[in-house]
Amino acid sequence: MPASVLVSTVRFEQRVTEMEKNGREEEKEAEQVVNPWEVSAKDGGKIDYDKLIDKFGCQRLDQTLISRVQRLTSRAPHVFLRRSVFFAHRDFNEILDSYERGDKFYLYTGRGPSSEALHLGHLVPFMFTKYLQDAFKVPLVIQLTDDEKCMWKNLSVEESQRLARENAKDIIACGFDITKTFIFSDFDYVGGAFYKNMVRVSKCVTYNKVVGIFGFTGEDHIGKISFPPVQAVPSFPSSFPHLFSGKDDLRCLIPCAIDQDPYFRMTRDVAPRIGYQKPALIESLFFPALQGETGKMSASDPNSAIYVTDSAKDIKNKVNKYAFSGGQDSIENHRKYGANLEVDIPIKYLGFFLEDDAELEHISKEYGAGRMLTGEVKKRLIEVLTEIVERHRRARAAVTDEMVDAFMAVRPLPNMFD
Amino acid sequence: MPASVLVSTVRFEQRVTEMEKNGREEEKEAEQVVNPWEVSAKDGGKIDYDKLIDKFGCQRLDQTLISRVQRLTSRAPHVFLRRSVFFAHRDFNEILDSYERGDKFYLYTGRGPSSEALHLGHLVPFMFTKYLQDAFKVPLVIQLTDDEKCMWKNLSVEESQRLARENAKDIIACGFDITKTFIFSDFDYVGGAFYKNMVRVSKCVTYNKVVGIFGFTGEDHIGKISFPPVQAVPSFPSSFPHLFSGKDDLRCLIPCAIDQDPYFRMTRDVAPRIGYQKPALIESLFFPALQGETGKMSASDPNSAIYVTDSAKDIKNKVNKYAFSGGQDSIENHRKYGANLEVDIPIKYLGFFLEDDAELEHISKEYGAGRMLTGEVKKRLIEVLTEIVERHRRARAAVTDEMVDAFMAVRPLPNMFD
Repeated sequence: MPASVLVSTVRFEQRVTEMEKNGREEEKEAEQVVNPWEVSAKDGGKIDYDKLIDKFGCQRLDQTLISRVQRLTSRAPHVFLRRSVFFAHRDFNEILDSYERGDKFYLYTGRGPSSEALHLGHLVPFMFTKYLQDAFKVPLVIQLTDDEKCMWKNLSVEESQRLARENAKDIIACGFDITKTFIFSDFDYVGGAFYKNMVRVSKCVTYNKVVGIFGFTGEDHIGKISFPPVQAVPSFPSSFPHLFSGKDDLRCLIPCAIDQDPYFRMTRDVAPRIGYQKPALIESLFFPALQGETGKMSASDPNSAIYVTDSAKDIKNKVNKYAFSGGQDSIENHRKYGANLEVDIPIKYLGFFLEDDAELEHISKEYGAGRMLTGEVKKRLIEVLTEIVERHRRARAAVTDEMVDAFMAVRPLPNMFD
Repeated sequence: MPASVLVSTVRFEQRVTEMEKNGREEEKEAEQVVNPWEVSAKDGGKIDYDKLIDKFGCQRLDQTLISRVQRLTSRAPHVFLRRSVFFAHRDFNEILDSYERGDKFYLYTGRGPSSEALHLGHLVPFMFTKYLQDAFKVPLVIQLTDDEKCMWKNLSVEESQRLARENAKDIIACGFDITKTFIFSDFDYVGGAFYKNMVRVSKCVTYNKVVGIFGFTGEDHIGKISFPPVQAVPSFPSSFPHLFSGKDDLRCLIPCAIDQDPYFRMTRDVAPRIGYQKPALIESLFFPALQGETGKMSASDPNSAIYVTDSAKDIKNKVNKYAFSGGQDSIENHRKYGANLEVDIPIKYLGFFLEDDAELEHISKEYGAGRMLTGEVKKRLIEVLTEIVERHRRARAAVTDEMVDAFMAVRPLPNMFD
């Protein structure tokens, strides 16, 4: 993938080396650029998600669908649904239709293991996927694209595999059900039925087509050109004969950030041509950098993100020092005009991670009216983030190598639909 | 591959659909075109092998090397060496140097399983490889590129795999030593260590580079662009951990027709960049069509080649009716001027398959002087070919599915160097 990565810290770095050389479709419009390796807004502004929905041809995830999820799962919709973090979809309604008829589906997400430590943005899709697994009681495959990162980040095969295992520990720490979850590394798992599907997909996609979708250039190595089918084929149950043998029509639902949409547009285009079902998608916003939605979360700037390895002191320092505030420049002005919530990062982060809707509404109202100060909001955010990171750290510390082996073992999951 | 295919009956067909669209390096010279999917001479003439050696940068396999092979193996050089069917090489001298010092190597050849029945041209590299295995007592890996044929011939995955197994029976019938031979299908075997090497190679080769080497165009599907590393990596012992674990420096020798040289030029270019030894090559001429060296062996014209499934009657009929003769148009002229051995197919075929040097010299002399008639030479050729085909048919009939499974099992070969 990283289908799971809301904002890949990696992707931005490549803009200079890779993006400026070529005229990809996005650039011709001289607007925002969103693809699996680059997310950048127009003129340093904010991402226009409505435009993105139009351009990509996906659908907005509206209140009707959210209510339907609530009814079908008999539980409150996840905070990421309630707050439109997951805001777009493709055929999610069809998944719910067939679920209502009694048909199951499976979930597919993933991560490109390019760094040792995950930041909070990386956790968002996994938190959401865990909710979906629990709510719908369905199996899940998680792809670790160690091959992708080996090729794009110029890591060695061995280092990519090491990072894949380290990242698997963070993913397992999110609480996935081992009886319903298969985690795999491409370097381990590509082959056999999976490779056959890669070839089937590759036959349907021309070089010109991947240039149009992903913007590769002639100077890109052929590993990059070969990669999209690797990310495509977990969408097809026949890629996992140990799990889904005889279930070729099982639908697949992919929770991912919307920058991964190009992979799955390609996949959905190819699927009927090779006799397979199109995967459905449920797609999220990007998780903003501490410096604001126009800033970048960059692996080369550790202060742009909260990492799951950050100490309480780190978190406090980063939020207080770097989290972009929509508050006014003086207390007097703040009391008078209130905070600009549109650009305020503490409020946005609380929108992701503060579960209590009433409290969030209260803070937004008070802060927006100038009755709460930035310092007070940041204090609450620090509490919330520290708790999440501490909880994650404890959970991760409990993940043993044996557990990683168990999640990654190629094995049937007899109770995956229970 | 087909590294093993002296003239692939497939490749020619693709010329119109693929070659005429683009200006590949070979075409710019407006001379002969030789690459893995096309072999065509200038202006319908003969392939100029000397030019090919210059252009590709390989070396002529001279008498000194042949004598050295004889001395090192204590047996007569194979007829394909004595008659310069294998006429070019890359680093074969280094293989012999290290062999002389007591180091072993391994052999790698293969076939693209695009048709049910093999013709005699297909058998040539396998006959030669069997000789090398016997003479040097070294292990052999044989790649069946069912993925390649699935992509180039638009066969289904299942049909490609079926053909791979059928072709494996013909290959096994050539007499390979099961204690030293591993046959694999890409659809079965790609993955793990093999896939890791594919990624390592892919990272080193740009799209522009493969366009330069293979002449792909933007309308070619990405499966084709991804394929060259699949054919490259059997050159590296680490692609076969069950065979060569801990033997990363084992040299690889590839017997193949010279049209496969582009794959291994690419491989040799990449090898040192990823810390691997360059494979050595020993390269053959193309096996001519019955209609003559300017003709094409074409799958759509069964009369252009002798198939291993042909009956004695088929062989007699094909040779008498289609084998291009260098004899004169009347007996009088023939007695007067003799046959033109340069273009005579019966003599060329006898050069491949009549083992008795003295008899071949006798026939050439008598026929060239007009004392033997075409009919007499064809009669002898029919005997020779019928015997080879009959012997192959008997050997193939004895190959069971269990033997195919045994050759294709991923297993250590503890006695492979004995």
